[in-house]
Amino acid sequence: MKRIYFDHAATTPLDQRVKDEMMPYFNIKFGNASSIHSYGREAKMALENSRSIISKELGASPEDIIFTSGGTESNNLTLKGIAFANKNKGTHIITSSIEHDCILNSCKWLENQGFNITYLPVDKYGIINPKDVEAAIDKSTILVSIMQANNEIGTIEPLEEIGKICNDHDVFFHTDACQSFTKVPLDVNKNNLDLVTINSHKIYGPKGVGALYIRKGTKIDPLMHGGGHERKLRSGTENVSGIVGFAKAVEISKEFDLHKMTKFRDKIIKNVLEVPDTRLNGHPTQRLCNNANFSFKYIEGESLLLRLDAKGVSVSTGSACSSNTLEPSHVLKALGLPPEYAHGSMRLTLGIYNKEEDVDYAVEVIKDEIKILRKISPFGG
Amino acid sequence: MKRIYFDHAATTPLDQRVKDEMMPYFNIKFGNASSIHSYGREAKMALENSRSIISKELGASPEDIIFTSGGTESNNLTLKGIAFANKNKGTHIITSSIEHDCILNSCKWLENQGFNITYLPVDKYGIINPKDVEAAIDKSTILVSIMQANNEIGTIEPLEEIGKICNDHDVFFHTDACQSFTKVPLDVNKNNLDLVTINSHKIYGPKGVGALYIRKGTKIDPLMHGGGHERKLRSGTENVSGIVGFAKAVEISKEFDLHKMTKFRDKIIKNVLEVPDTRLNGHPTQRLCNNANFSFKYIEGESLLLRLDAKGVSVSTGSACSSNTLEPSHVLKALGLPPEYAHGSMRLTLGIYNKEEDVDYAVEVIKDEIKILRKISPFGG
Repeated sequence: MKRIYFDHAATTPLDQRVKDEMMPYFNIKFGNASSIHSYGREAKMALENSRSIISKELGASPEDIIFTSGGTESNNLTLKGIAFANKNKGTHIITSSIEHDCILNSCKWLENQGFNITYLPVDKYGIINPKDVEAAIDKSTILVSIMQANNEIGTIEPLEEIGKICNDHDVFFHTDACQSFTKVPLDVNKNNLDLVTINSHKIYGPKGVGALYIRKGTKIDPLMHGGGHERKLRSGTENVSGIVGFAKAVEISKEFDLHKMTKFRDKIIKNVLEVPDTRLNGHPTQRLCNNANFSFKYIEGESLLLRLDAKGVSVSTGSACSSNTLEPSHVLKALGLPPEYAHGSMRLTLGIYNKEEDVDYAVEVIKDEIKILRKISPFGG
Repeated sequence: MKRIYFDHAATTPLDQRVKDEMMPYFNIKFGNASSIHSYGREAKMALENSRSIISKELGASPEDIIFTSGGTESNNLTLKGIAFANKNKGTHIITSSIEHDCILNSCKWLENQGFNITYLPVDKYGIINPKDVEAAIDKSTILVSIMQANNEIGTIEPLEEIGKICNDHDVFFHTDACQSFTKVPLDVNKNNLDLVTINSHKIYGPKGVGALYIRKGTKIDPLMHGGGHERKLRSGTENVSGIVGFAKAVEISKEFDLHKMTKFRDKIIKNVLEVPDTRLNGHPTQRLCNNANFSFKYIEGESLLLRLDAKGVSVSTGSACSSNTLEPSHVLKALGLPPEYAHGSMRLTLGIYNKEEDVDYAVEVIKDEIKILRKISPFGG
C-alpha cells in the first residue's frame, strides 16, 4: 500500500543530505567539544560553524545562539529562566491562550511558584491583537511570549507590532518559532525579539536538538546547571552530530520551493471545503504554507484519522503532543468553534517530498471517508 | 601519525552496531512517538522496546525509566524536581563535595531559592563515609545524592550502605551513575535507590540522550513541562533514533571484556608510577576499570596534555566539562592534594577499542614527555 505522510508539523524525516553531514560526527569526529585535545577541538569547530550558520538565519550573532535538546527545552528555559532571574523586577508574564503546551504548562507551574500569568484571547482566526498585549502590560511585566505561527491551525501572528510594543515598554519579548522557522522570515532586530525558540526535527533535521536565541544583556537563569557549556546558559555535553545536522537542515531549507507548497495547500483547502458542513480552521491567507486544518461537523477526528491511516494517508487531529486525549484541543476551544465542529478536526501538514499526486490522492480519500463516516454517524445526514 | 584516544570518560565513539541500529529511525521509521497514525505507532514501539532493554540493566520496571537529553538533565531534574515537589516536607539536601558540576551547580542555584545543602567531605581516596551521611540527615532532609563512581578519579562509592541509611530514614536516594553504568553492577532494589541518572554517550551510544530511573511513588516536579510525554515527567518529542541507539549500546555492553580493561588499567598504573614524584589519584582498587588518574609533582597538566596530544595520545586533565579553567579541579581539592601536585593531574580513561600496543605506546610517550617537561620546568630536576 502507498503510504503518504502529511504530518510534517509533528515531525519530519531526516533529509539524506543532513544524514550524510552528520555521519562522521558519530564515530570519527566524535570528540567532546569541551576537551582540549585534537578530538575535542575538531568537535568544537563543527559546533561553532553550526552556530554561525543558524544565527545568520535569524539575523543574529553566533554568540547569541545556545543549543538545547529541542523546542520544549528552549521554551521552558525562556519562561523559567526569565522568571527566576527577574523576579525582583516583577512577576508578571503575558502569553496567549493558543501557545504550545510547553509554554502553557510552564506558565501553570510558574503560577504555583508565585508568578502571575495573563493568557490573551485570540480572534476567530487565532490572531492575537497587539492592542491586547499593550493593554495587559503593567509595571510588573517581565516577559511577553507569543508564538510566530500556531502549530495546529497555522495562523501567523503579528510579531512585528508586538515587538514594537514590548520594546517601548522595556519588556523582554520571546517567540516560539518552531513551526515557522525557515518557512516565515524572522529577524530578531526587525521584530525586537530578545529570545527565539527554534528546533531541528520540524525542518528535516534530527530530533533532540533545538536552540534558543538570547539577545546579549538578557537576564536569564539556566534551566540546566553544570559544566558551564553554552556560555554557562545550558550545561551538558553538546550533541555535536545533532547540531551539525540541524545546521545542515537550515542550509538546505533555502532550496525548498515554498511557493509550490503553498499551491498544494490551497488546492487541498479548496477541494476539502467542497465537502458540506466543513470549516477551515485558522486564517485563510495569514497561515503557514504547509498547514491545512479543517473541522467536519458531527465527525469524530480520531475515527477519521484512523480510517485515513488505513488508506495510507497519515494526518493528525489536534497536535501530536496532545493527541492521546479525546478533549478538543485548547487551540480550537480558543477559536470559539461550535461544539458540533470541535471534535472533528483534522490537520494536514505538507512536506517537501509530497507530490501533487499525493495531494490529489489524499483529497479523494478524505472525501470518501467523510462520506462513509457521516453515513454511519447517528448525527450524519 | 597514529592517534590514540584515551579520554573515554569525556565521551566515546559510537559503536558501529549502535549506528546501524539507529539508521532506519532517521528517515524511514521517523514518526513522532506521540502520533497515533502508523508512523507514530512504529516510533512508539521502538521507544518502549528501548525502555524495556534499559530498565532490565538496572533491575527496574520499564515504566520507571524516563528519557532525557543526557546526564546533566537527569541530574538537574532530580535535584530541582525533588526540591520543588517536596519543599513542604523539608528543604535540606545532602550531597558530596566531589559530585559532577551539574549536581554541585544545581545545588548552588537551589541555595539561592531557599534550600539548604550539605556537601560531605571525602577521604584521601575520594570515598564518602556512610556514617557522615547518617550524621547529616535531619528532619528536614528530603534527598541524598551520591555518585556511584567519580568521573575524574574513578573512585567507587559505598552505595549499598548509603542506600540502607536513606531507606531507614525515609529520605529519597539518588545516584549519578553516568561513569559507572554498564561497568559496575547497579540494582535499584539492592541499593534502595529512588532515582538513578544514566547516559548514552559514555557507553558508545549517541550524545544528547540519557535517562532517569524514578521509583514509583517518588514525588517529583518536571524540569520540562509541555505535552506530557514520559509519564508527564519529561515533555518534548522523544529522540527516537537516539534512544534506540542508547538501548543498543546497553545491549552490546554485555560483550565487553572488562577484565582485559582492568588489566590494561593496572599496567598503566604500574608503569606510570615508576616516574619519580608521581601519585595515583583515587582508590588503588575500588576504582572504575577504565580509569587511571595521576598527579605529577611540578608539572602543569595542560602543557602535558597538549604535548601528549601532539604525539597522538589524547588524555584529559581534570574533567572535560571544566577543562577550560586553569584551577585545580574541585575533586582534587577535596582529596587534599599538596599544591605542588594539584596542578599536574592527568586522567587516562580506557575504551573497548584500545589495544595493548596502544597502552604501551601511551606509557612510553607519557614517560618521555614528563622527563622533557621536568627538564624545562623552573622547579624540575
